[in-house]
Amino acid sequence: MKGFLHPRTPTGRASVTAGPPWHYAGDLITVEYRTDPAKVAALLPEPLAPAAEDPGAVALIWADWQACSDGGEELLDPVRSQYRECFVVVRCRFAGRTYSRCVFIWVDKDFSLARGIHQGYPKKIGSIHQTRPHPYGPAPRIEAGARFGATLAAGDRRLAEAVIELTEPSPHNGFVNAHPMAHHRRQPNIEPGKPDSYSELVESGAAAFEGGPAWAARAELRLFESPTEELADLTVEEHIGAYYRQVGVTWNGGTVLA
Amino acid sequence: MKGFLHPRTPTGRASVTAGPPWHYAGDLITVEYRTDPAKVAALLPEPLAPAAEDPGAVALIWADWQACSDGGEELLDPVRSQYRECFVVVRCRFAGRTYSRCVFIWVDKDFSLARGIHQGYPKKIGSIHQTRPHPYGPAPRIEAGARFGATLAAGDRRLAEAVIELTEPSPHNGFVNAHPMAHHRRQPNIEPGKPDSYSELVESGAAAFEGGPAWAARAELRLFESPTEELADLTVEEHIGAYYRQVGVTWNGGTVLA
Amino acid sequence: MKGFLHPRTPTGRASVTAGPPWHYAGDLITVEYRTDPAKVAALLPEPLAPAAEDPGAVALIWADWQACSDGGEELLDPVRSQYRECFVVVRCRFAGRTYSRCVFIWVDKDFSLARGIHQGYPKKIGSIHQTRPHPYGPAPRIEAGARFGATLAAGDRRLAEAVIELTEPSPHNGFVNAHPMAHHRRQPNIEPGKPDSYSELVESGAAAFEGGPAWAARAELRLFESPTEELADLTVEEHIGAYYRQVGVTWNGGTVLA
Amino acid sequence: MKGFLHPRTPTGRASVTAGPPWHYAGDLITVEYRTDPAKVAALLPEPLAPAAEDPGAVALIWADWQACSDGGEELLDPVRSQYRECFVVVRCRFAGRTYSRCVFIWVDKDFSLARGIHQGYPKKIGSIHQTRPHPYGPAPRIEAGARFGATLAAGDRRLAEAVIELTEPSPHNGFVNAHPMAHHRRQPNIEPGKPDSYSELVESGAAAFEGGPAWAARAELRLFESPTEELADLTVEEHIGAYYRQVGVTWNGGTVLA
Repeated sequence: MKGFLHPRTPTGRASVTAGPPWHYAGDLITVEYRTDPAKVAALLPEPLAPAAEDPGAVALIWADWQACSDGGEELLDPVRSQYRECFVVVRCRFAGRTYSRCVFIWVDKDFSLARGIHQGYPKKIGSIHQTRPHPYGPAPRIEAGARFGATLAAGDRRLAEAVIELTEPSPHNGFVNAHPMAHHRRQPNIEPGKPDSYSELVESGAAAFEGGPAWAARAELRLFESPTEELADLTVEEHIGAYYRQVGVTWNGGTVLA
Repeated sequence: MKGFLHPRTPTGRASVTAGPPWHYAGDLITVEYRTDPAKVAALLPEPLAPAAEDPGAVALIWADWQACSDGGEELLDPVRSQYRECFVVVRCRFAGRTYSRCVFIWVDKDFSLARGIHQGYPKKIGSIHQTRPHPYGPAPRIEAGARFGATLAAGDRRLAEAVIELTEPSPHNGFVNAHPMAHHRRQPNIEPGKPDSYSELVESGAAAFEGGPAWAARAELRLFESPTEELADLTVEEHIGAYYRQVGVTWNGGTVLA
Repeated sequence: MKGFLHPRTPTGRASVTAGPPWHYAGDLITVEYRTDPAKVAALLPEPLAPAAEDPGAVALIWADWQACSDGGEELLDPVRSQYRECFVVVRCRFAGRTYSRCVFIWVDKDFSLARGIHQGYPKKIGSIHQTRPHPYGPAPRIEAGARFGATLAAGDRRLAEAVIELTEPSPHNGFVNAHPMAHHRRQPNIEPGKPDSYSELVESGAAAFEGGPAWAARAELRLFESPTEELADLTVEEHIGAYYRQVGVTWNGGTVLA
Repeated sequence: MKGFLHPRTPTGRASVTAGPPWHYAGDLITVEYRTDPAKVAALLPEPLAPAAEDPGAVALIWADWQACSDGGEELLDPVRSQYRECFVVVRCRFAGRTYSRCVFIWVDKDFSLARGIHQGYPKKIGSIHQTRPHPYGPAPRIEAGARFGATLAAGDRRLAEAVIELTEPSPHNGFVNAHPMAHHRRQPNIEPGKPDSYSELVESGAAAFEGGPAWAARAELRLFESPTEELADLTVEEHIGAYYRQVGVTWNGGTVLA
């Protein structure tokens, strides 16, 4: 049976996604802030420990992607390549190294959800929007003074909204999401009460990367309560910074850490 | 960390679904037909064998659900309980027993997709519609002569459409989906080329069931090609029957077969 | 050129909706309350006056419909017949008569939006959900103690949510939406600053009606702010009642009042 | 009462759209072809006549927009500014002038639908996707050899799909959509059998325009049947050309022709 993921068939054609490498082109809006470090620590399961420095740092990131597997055929049927996501990244420590870790993420297409589950991203479906740069008309160029909005909703409730205003080029795109990712992958046992069918800590990062200049930005960020979400519990105690960057990324697997 | 599935947190509130038991109320439209038995066999991985009798039988089933976990709070925020799905069931044999097996399935909500992956259903996101019975106005009652339409789309392409016309009460709701389910659960290794992180054959079925009378029906069924789907390859060679039934079901885990 | 509405063609087949009569089968959840009568009056343009009695009464109504034109073919392709809506009704007076009037309404399909604009309903697109009664499983039956949730969102923001609990059969389904509708129909001039291309006050109501028993209910209702909506300004000052009813309705045109 | 369109209130805030001028930034994929001129003529109501030259020319255009009213606040809540549309343009003649005319159009947001109805575009809701250019990763740059896909669906059926490959800069962006638009605006009478409440022929065009270089392209185009659409009847008899262009446009009203 072929197919990277389900459903598997003799051809593999129906699989919700072809296998990696996966290639991405997109725009990232990043808002970094500090919350109570205890709230970040509470989201880090064993064997992860809080980051040694700035352990309350959080990045809320919006991404507007076009993605494909090798060959790129998804790009020409864009309902199969375009998606948007919004995700929350914190940092943690394992075996003496600092990792980034996605603790919440919402995405608007199933192929991306499936890829993310493979990578250890805790993906749920949401509705994500972000202003796109454009060279003409009322949309912003990527330049000082340009303003971009970004919003997240799930379950018919708005969960987050940000407006950023670009100020100047930045030597980096933030520090919270700048490490390899340390994610748990796990599936509960089909038999209630028995140990998970698998549970592992994995590391992965970009296999290839290119990007334009990062821009620093001022940001306003608002988080909203929902009975099914815990994003708003990561209250904004102090703004760190915000960034805009266009990137091209390839992901091609990771390694098992534990 | 709590939470039946991701994302896991100290409270478990953000999990894409609470754990089982899961309770369902809904209407099922079932269309059974025969395709080339070799096509069914080709969808059965080791160690499954084709059913001993009528090995080319296929059931295409539409379901319009309201579902909840214990306590039922999802029912009062119905964006969290209502979903529709369309799925393809065949039969297979393992260790001397006959099982039903879902080979393709599309659903329109993430909580259902996540529950399904746990159960071994190969769920992808689709757009599913079926006519609902209603006691007043132009919608059909559940009675002889009543007609119901059912459609499936994914990736902005229509994949299947059926119209059934109820003829008379039936002693059963079809035979293809009448066995315990035998499903594979599996996750590829994060490290390309290495063995799956887990791969198992599981069995599950209803922990509780109630239902109204089944109705037999005449059916017209049309399947359509898509570059990302293989449903249409299960060509309709011979109609078997069609059914309508309202049911209440509870699912509460399964067992590992292999 | 044929076609009740656009686009018009020699066959009329592409029209966003066939012409009336339009037939509806569905379930209504009605929550009636009093707001400041001045807020209702402010939504009544000339020549309408506030209702003589209880001029602050508001009905917030959720409806889960299957609708069709004569012949009913939409019912068998249910993406073309099923839709949900949530709307706000107040009462007003014109020429000595009391009318109901829809001041806000959200719907989730274009064919319904187009029909509504024809009828003078100020329809916008939203996301609407309401618990459905079902004879089996965890969903409610229509009986004392049954609880139904209902929610409204637009622009990725939740605007309203209600939970009702049925208490006993009711001799009526509320009084706010019980009169003929008095609606304005209007289109601004394509030439800025010039008079409307048409503007008229129309009356319409059901051409045929059947329905099950109405049920009285207790209700909790919450309204939420949005930068693009004014529903929450109709604050709940006093609960009046709530109702559940299944109905079948036909609409077949109206008359011009002014 | 204020509000450019419904619902009208004392503040006008709830109106489905603020009034013009409306500003747009977006990318256009245009595919021009010839169909049987009689099929175009059949879509032109009185008093319009077929274009004098090349009367069977058709442009199928995809557009990926960000749009706003003066002030631009919609851009920062992008669920209110971003939309996609696909539309069919032909040419016609009136009073000795050549006009463009949109005969079919699908769009994915209500504010755009409402603006379009005001402009005489026969808008329905659809699902529209087109590949976006991007400076990094696997998405195309705007350059020779770049390939873009574009798709249209409505009612859960795919209606059209195109793939274009840019060949060289073009001195124009096609000729079919290059004239002022001549559209009918009309609303049937609320009283069946009576004359339309208004019916008029209007002209409008861009009040301001800027754009990047147009690119010529090779195109493959496929149209698909649907029971509710007539796009596929405009069969492709001969390819004319295809184009890609990024533009900024302002629309600010039109004039009544008849």
